[in-house]
Amino acid sequence: MPFSSSPQAALRASWEANAPLWTEAVREGRIPSRKAATDAAIVEAVLDGLPMGGQVLDVGCGEGWLARALHQLGVRVHGIDGSAALIGSAQNEGYGTFELNDYALVAVASERLGGPYDAAVFNFALLDDDAVSILRAARESLDIGGRVLIQTVHPLSTGGPYTDGWRRESFSDIGEGFTPMPWYFRTLSSWIRTIRSAGLTVTDLREPTHSETGEPLSLLWTAE
Amino acid sequence: MPFSSSPQAALRASWEANAPLWTEAVREGRIPSRKAATDAAIVEAVLDGLPMGGQVLDVGCGEGWLARALHQLGVRVHGIDGSAALIGSAQNEGYGTFELNDYALVAVASERLGGPYDAAVFNFALLDDDAVSILRAARESLDIGGRVLIQTVHPLSTGGPYTDGWRRESFSDIGEGFTPMPWYFRTLSSWIRTIRSAGLTVTDLREPTHSETGEPLSLLWTAE
Repeated sequence: MPFSSSPQAALRASWEANAPLWTEAVREGRIPSRKAATDAAIVEAVLDGLPMGGQVLDVGCGEGWLARALHQLGVRVHGIDGSAALIGSAQNEGYGTFELNDYALVAVASERLGGPYDAAVFNFALLDDDAVSILRAARESLDIGGRVLIQTVHPLSTGGPYTDGWRRESFSDIGEGFTPMPWYFRTLSSWIRTIRSAGLTVTDLREPTHSETGEPLSLLWTAE
Repeated sequence: MPFSSSPQAALRASWEANAPLWTEAVREGRIPSRKAATDAAIVEAVLDGLPMGGQVLDVGCGEGWLARALHQLGVRVHGIDGSAALIGSAQNEGYGTFELNDYALVAVASERLGGPYDAAVFNFALLDDDAVSILRAARESLDIGGRVLIQTVHPLSTGGPYTDGWRRESFSDIGEGFTPMPWYFRTLSSWIRTIRSAGLTVTDLREPTHSETGEPLSLLWTAE
């Protein structure tokens, strides 16, 4: 899986390059697994146990669909993303506050996240090999009793060797013209250790499934 | 998967019927996944963090191999099992204390387990649809800082629909003449909820893999 730069740099660059096509794909509902289950699952998980007037941090908010969906349900969301193009796209639509914020900067200065929040959400947004730093920052931004929610790839819905490592997403089931994106696959045990290393404890796991095939489409961790 | 009685009753009866063949298979090392990784993994997990002179409860100890393996390493083990034939087999070999003890009785009277223990181990021994009752009893038998260890089937190493339910083990890769055994498959999220329902928190997960194929052979949960 050769990238011309480091996978971390290629990961960032891919989002900047893909921002227009990605925004279009999300807004047209063209990502099969998201329509099938995972969009609804993350909204439900955020709402479950959220206090009245609860505040949510959406880390890696992209073009902002989750903030808009939660706004419709009376939840205030602050979104951050490392892509200027996606943050611009989110700000254009509104229904939340959105800020360009680099994960690496946040990791060393969690006050950049604002807060305190009742939930910090990573919806398919932990793609780097270092997930502990940003998770620890998110934990520090939580109010007492706050939760971290992480939705990510399910090992039963992806092939390849069952071991931590960089993989390549081509977006071929969404459309053409995308720049391939490196992303870091983690085993189940690696997820639990990553969450623990950030000072959090796993309190729940949901596995949204495809309503017709019964296939699990994602892992949705709750940590406190 | 028809059994002539309830799956719970058939599960118990299968162990009584299979005791001689099972004892032989374990002692001759004829269970491929156990030889490949899972035997060593449970021994390592028990030892990891066990205090000097630590005491271990082996729930569903069967013919007693784990107690004997841990005895060689200086660990005292008390084993319980619901099969009189298997407990007899364990007592014949020695190197631990072994007691016939019904899970259902233990569940309502955890003092039957003795203790306090530094670790309670379920090595492929949670086969019933109700796992919460016996896990709760095991938790009550723990000393402060004690751990529960559960080794079980990995979803990537078993086929079938990804949903909780009764399945049938034919033991065909071990030998002939076994009585089929009903056992209850759980999804990952079901395991985490079962552990939480027993008043425990997941603190670690190990996934022993086959050294040649890299296939994960089991889930090995640590809970506190």
